[in-house]
Amino acid sequence: MIVGVLGGGQLGQMLALAGIPLGMRFRFFEPAEESCVDGIGERVRAGYDDLDALGRFAEGLDVVTYEFENVPVAAVEYLATLVPHVYPPAGALAVAQDRLTEKTFLEAQGVPCPPFAAVSSEAELREAAARLGLPAVLKTRRFGYDGKGQVVLRAEADLEGAWEAGGGAPSILERFVPFEREASILAVRGRDGDIACYPLVENRHREGILRLSVAPGPHLDAGLQAEAERHARAVLEALGYVGVLAIEFFVEGGRLLANEMAPRVHNSGHWTIEGAATSQFENHLRAVLGLPLGSTAAVGWSAMLNLIGALPDLDAVYRMPDAHVHLYGKSERPGRKLGHVTVRASGAEALSARVTPLGAAGFEVGLTPR
Amino acid sequence: MIVGVLGGGQLGQMLALAGIPLGMRFRFFEPAEESCVDGIGERVRAGYDDLDALGRFAEGLDVVTYEFENVPVAAVEYLATLVPHVYPPAGALAVAQDRLTEKTFLEAQGVPCPPFAAVSSEAELREAAARLGLPAVLKTRRFGYDGKGQVVLRAEADLEGAWEAGGGAPSILERFVPFEREASILAVRGRDGDIACYPLVENRHREGILRLSVAPGPHLDAGLQAEAERHARAVLEALGYVGVLAIEFFVEGGRLLANEMAPRVHNSGHWTIEGAATSQFENHLRAVLGLPLGSTAAVGWSAMLNLIGALPDLDAVYRMPDAHVHLYGKSERPGRKLGHVTVRASGAEALSARVTPLGAAGFEVGLTPR
Repeated sequence: MIVGVLGGGQLGQMLALAGIPLGMRFRFFEPAEESCVDGIGERVRAGYDDLDALGRFAEGLDVVTYEFENVPVAAVEYLATLVPHVYPPAGALAVAQDRLTEKTFLEAQGVPCPPFAAVSSEAELREAAARLGLPAVLKTRRFGYDGKGQVVLRAEADLEGAWEAGGGAPSILERFVPFEREASILAVRGRDGDIACYPLVENRHREGILRLSVAPGPHLDAGLQAEAERHARAVLEALGYVGVLAIEFFVEGGRLLANEMAPRVHNSGHWTIEGAATSQFENHLRAVLGLPLGSTAAVGWSAMLNLIGALPDLDAVYRMPDAHVHLYGKSERPGRKLGHVTVRASGAEALSARVTPLGAAGFEVGLTPR
Repeated sequence: MIVGVLGGGQLGQMLALAGIPLGMRFRFFEPAEESCVDGIGERVRAGYDDLDALGRFAEGLDVVTYEFENVPVAAVEYLATLVPHVYPPAGALAVAQDRLTEKTFLEAQGVPCPPFAAVSSEAELREAAARLGLPAVLKTRRFGYDGKGQVVLRAEADLEGAWEAGGGAPSILERFVPFEREASILAVRGRDGDIACYPLVENRHREGILRLSVAPGPHLDAGLQAEAERHARAVLEALGYVGVLAIEFFVEGGRLLANEMAPRVHNSGHWTIEGAATSQFENHLRAVLGLPLGSTAAVGWSAMLNLIGALPDLDAVYRMPDAHVHLYGKSERPGRKLGHVTVRASGAEALSARVTPLGAAGFEVGLTPR
């Protein structure tokens, strides 16, 4: 059983590592020269608009999935004509690729979002700013990730030149949320419609990049968990979704406000490799292959620290009990996710005691687990 | 960092799956056409006596290890002239490949074995049988695994023709041990001499093949754990060993009697993938690469069931919480290890409640975990 994966980054690598023990082998479609999957699967290297290459990629496959949300929808739709099963559905990808479509869709499913407005000219920007108030965040509608394509407008003066600086790309303006916490829910839906949700994760971003995830979220109560699960279910069902989906939230005034969704396995779910009965990667594969979903129960408490830009000395991690190193085989570059470390413990306090000293060892801890 | 591995079976596959997240890549040397590692590493396919091929295999490698204990010692010694680090040391391999050398060595380290005698003729067999008494087990000195090359002699009449039936290969005769239980210890020694031991495992074999391992061994007390660790330390230190080593024991009259040792990761340690803070595969790699050893603490209770000969319907496993499927990608054949399933639970009784029903689902449970 060969599973086709569009994209060949670290998410592809971790999908393969989860699927190989289940008897699967992998074929990746990745345009870039450097990938994280060379040596752990076949690879087709071509552009997403190369129909011949997509055809070669599809040959003999029963299932295609993706690990990269900026795959052109047309490529996914074309593959759906060649391969019996392409999951998640192309519609989910289309929704997630455009912030305006995404937020409109989320609100239609009853998922609250920060107030926002479509902006396609400087005049519209000024009008939206007047209506929503400042501070606000101007975000391009498409191709944003890890904080790219976003600018915070704090005062009237920041409006000057902001539209030109953004290159005039279709955007949204969103009320700035002075959130108490950031959270995310990982949810998975099987081909049979069965749904399972992981415990809510508490996240910490800096410069738009996820730095730390702690799960189960130490400051998130059962009420927020139920609220997040309700939102996830509504989204999964509306999309006829199959696979893992992540929704990132702000917690403001004790309520969840959706920030964005990702129709794929997600960085804030990496802790599930060691910290849950079934990892997000295995559950995504189980879902897209039509196998029963696995338990999403937490196994102890976990903190996941991203390794960004340059690798720190990992000795302190190797010497720590129940700490797990994951390197993606990428070359160093500022802002690039090169790997992550998951630290697990039997309780939240024991976890905090383990993670805190890593700050002194050059790791960006960012958030006290408790 | 490419790690060279002699052998390309399931142990090689699981080594690679443990090492890839640590940033390692793998090159396997495997003579057989079918292997478990195609697609997850490079492969050199040649005989172990092909020096040119061993040279190509060694090119650029810093470390070579093995996952198959019948690798010719000469091949390992030759590689040690080409590569800076070859672990475990060839001496350990030489000891483990010959049951007579092995038992003589174990006894010299203070590790009790069942009474045995070298046998190289029918006359010596009869003499040994008279001295040790019957029942006894005749075992070829070399190339035995999974019960191959062994015959139980229960009564005087069984001696007739037994020597010829064995092909006259140099053998040992060993007193038959009416054991209460079977146990094994997995131990690991780093390049710096640091040693860590996993909790004692309770095993059940049938027809010479391991069927089930439960860890921590539910009927094995702290006294036996200490005894096993003492034996493992003595063996590791005497051999200047680096890597994971397994010793299988019989428990007779509440004492441990060594059955055999394996200078490699071991089937009775597969539960450590989910059931220990650091798996035997990761700890073996950490050891041979000179990294600090990881914690060997158990994470809950685990039962590992081998899938032998033919694959059962895995649906019952996929529907069970915290059950983990591992398939090796091998074709079905009687007596062949095709995969394993590890079931984990938070306590021994919960584990038993999960594993027992698998008997009805066509799995060979063999041993009640508690």
